[in-house]
Amino acid sequence: MKASARLSYKLRKNLVLAILLPFTIIITIYLTFFHNRGGSSSFTLNITKNRWTRETQASSSYLPFTSKFRIPKYSYKKVQNWMFNEHIDEIISEGHIAEFDLNKLHSTKDASINKEKVLILTPLQKFHQEYWENILQLSYPRELIELGFIVPRTQTGDLALQSLEKAVEKTQTDKKNQRFAKVTILRQDSESFNKLAEKERHALNVQKERRSSMALARNELLFSTIGPHTSWVLWLDADIVETPSTLIQDMTAHDKSVLAANVFQRYYDDEKKASATRPYDFNNWQESEIGLELASKMNDDEIIVEGYSEIATYRPLMAYFHDTTKPVSEEMILDGVGGGCTLVKAEVHRDGAMFPSFPFYHLIETEGFAKMAKRLGYEIFGLPNYLVYHIEETNI
Amino acid sequence: MKASARLSYKLRKNLVLAILLPFTIIITIYLTFFHNRGGSSSFTLNITKNRWTRETQASSSYLPFTSKFRIPKYSYKKVQNWMFNEHIDEIISEGHIAEFDLNKLHSTKDASINKEKVLILTPLQKFHQEYWENILQLSYPRELIELGFIVPRTQTGDLALQSLEKAVEKTQTDKKNQRFAKVTILRQDSESFNKLAEKERHALNVQKERRSSMALARNELLFSTIGPHTSWVLWLDADIVETPSTLIQDMTAHDKSVLAANVFQRYYDDEKKASATRPYDFNNWQESEIGLELASKMNDDEIIVEGYSEIATYRPLMAYFHDTTKPVSEEMILDGVGGGCTLVKAEVHRDGAMFPSFPFYHLIETEGFAKMAKRLGYEIFGLPNYLVYHIEETNI
Repeated sequence: MKASARLSYKLRKNLVLAILLPFTIIITIYLTFFHNRGGSSSFTLNITKNRWTRETQASSSYLPFTSKFRIPKYSYKKVQNWMFNEHIDEIISEGHIAEFDLNKLHSTKDASINKEKVLILTPLQKFHQEYWENILQLSYPRELIELGFIVPRTQTGDLALQSLEKAVEKTQTDKKNQRFAKVTILRQDSESFNKLAEKERHALNVQKERRSSMALARNELLFSTIGPHTSWVLWLDADIVETPSTLIQDMTAHDKSVLAANVFQRYYDDEKKASATRPYDFNNWQESEIGLELASKMNDDEIIVEGYSEIATYRPLMAYFHDTTKPVSEEMILDGVGGGCTLVKAEVHRDGAMFPSFPFYHLIETEGFAKMAKRLGYEIFGLPNYLVYHIEETNI
Repeated sequence: MKASARLSYKLRKNLVLAILLPFTIIITIYLTFFHNRGGSSSFTLNITKNRWTRETQASSSYLPFTSKFRIPKYSYKKVQNWMFNEHIDEIISEGHIAEFDLNKLHSTKDASINKEKVLILTPLQKFHQEYWENILQLSYPRELIELGFIVPRTQTGDLALQSLEKAVEKTQTDKKNQRFAKVTILRQDSESFNKLAEKERHALNVQKERRSSMALARNELLFSTIGPHTSWVLWLDADIVETPSTLIQDMTAHDKSVLAANVFQRYYDDEKKASATRPYDFNNWQESEIGLELASKMNDDEIIVEGYSEIATYRPLMAYFHDTTKPVSEEMILDGVGGGCTLVKAEVHRDGAMFPSFPFYHLIETEGFAKMAKRLGYEIFGLPNYLVYHIEETNI
């Protein structure tokens, strides 16, 4: 199965199929009109027949680029290839003129029904098979999902890249209707965002540097992958290994400009001798009076990072608002977000909201992004009872 | 000539040519091996011959998508189509896996030699034929130039769009080697950045609103068009109608992260009864002590805009540093830039530098962008003696 998929993949890479169809047409015309004039073409015919059969089996009849010079005039409607039922719009080629009407690009609560494109972005320090399998079990139509990764230029980055490539190639060469619309993998040019080991990396004194380079990585990834067709951007960290399969439908249904899920972690409770869960991501918070007061006394270049006793902001943290007695759809207003599992309407980014690598109102990275989105006039929300899970630290 | 170009354009838009080539191959094979067996194919042959000739004349032999599933693995080298000498890499199709190594993406002083891609971005309120003709006379290789426009949703925007489409289609359907690599036209979704007439729009009290919506337009354009292959972004306003033809080569040669040309204006001096030039863009400036002091006394949401007597910052303005006795390559350090003709290394944007529509250190739009680039650690320069020209106001 694997070998045949690879073969069909290679076949599609070259001219063979592009030539094949007209070839067959000619032969058919020839047979219809001239066949009685001699059997001399039977050799050619046999080859054609065989190829044609294989092509059909692989359901990979590729002539989708024949309409590439059709100009999409203010329309996101799918252009149907008259010969095969392939979706071929939005393929922008060299020399092509592409027009997009941003007014017809929507991010609505009926995202999948309206065929809104979702871009899932993941800075990838380490490849967890569980992360990939969780992506694969999402039920949002894959033809509407684009994936983007940025991998640090380190040894662990090399390993992560290898595993990622393998996983991606397997999916993207599998059945056509099971493929993601696009997968972009970036290799970071600047210094790594993963210089520090897991144990060190949560220490307060290294947070600023780490999160500053993480912000740069997120921006490089965002600017390189967001397109004029993108409706939603889902920031999903590489260590999020468990989400509901309806994650994208559930979150888009809230129709919020920025919406964060609550990141928890499964672990083994040694005392109770049982599996348990605990809050993990403390970057989703509401501003507090004390937080604002702390900020007002800081130098311009100082930052506040949440979740450290050294800086007690007494900010209400979404992680602690989880309440199993309340509906999972409950929303709360936030002022800061993390990047664990956060859905953003593409227009928020397109208006300019990025991840500041410098102190922005004494905030950086995802928390600075939240502040920037607010400065652009958007509201930020979180779902305290909608849980996604970070991988266990012991597995890292 | 025009009619035949349009015809050839229409031809390329559909399946005809994709079928034609293999058709010809078959006929050739047929003639070679089976010709002596009868003259029955002469009708078909004639058609093919004619078409083939026309195709060759138009130099538009289109089968460029046959290698689309080749995965560009950390390489920006051009992939040659084995059949025609067409550049076909960086065409990312549905289901495609695209990998980019940002470390191999450079922005150097030898931009054209290194085949670095330049993205020219223009918010287009009004289409001036002189603007387009100036773009066409640039000598930087067009195959390395991508163009991006954003057009406001207004009546004048509709007119501008019509003229732009006409101009773009003419160029992009002309000789293949004369086409730009890509042209993207966006229709703005939000309110217009061109609500105000020319006379009003320079009044201080409307500057904040006007420049804020212009910032949004720039961000929408930037986020939608910058790709992982972009080396340079040239911000060129729609009313810049005259630049040296070596503009891109000249400016990239300075190898600066952000570099602004000096925007002047030709006009008829009624007193001297002669043509003359005068400084036009006052957004390119160095910070002054007085400017900083003014800012420190302002409320958070107040902004300073340059070029108004109401806010006298006494900032050194590049417009007034023009000196014909000094070399055109002379550089000066700047703290604020305009968008008239400003070249930016793509990495500056990719790191997150955008155009704040909200007060950022009491600056917005291009001036806020300069501040943001500085916060990201980049230096800003200007070329006081390198002139480009804004259209005469009487022509607007």
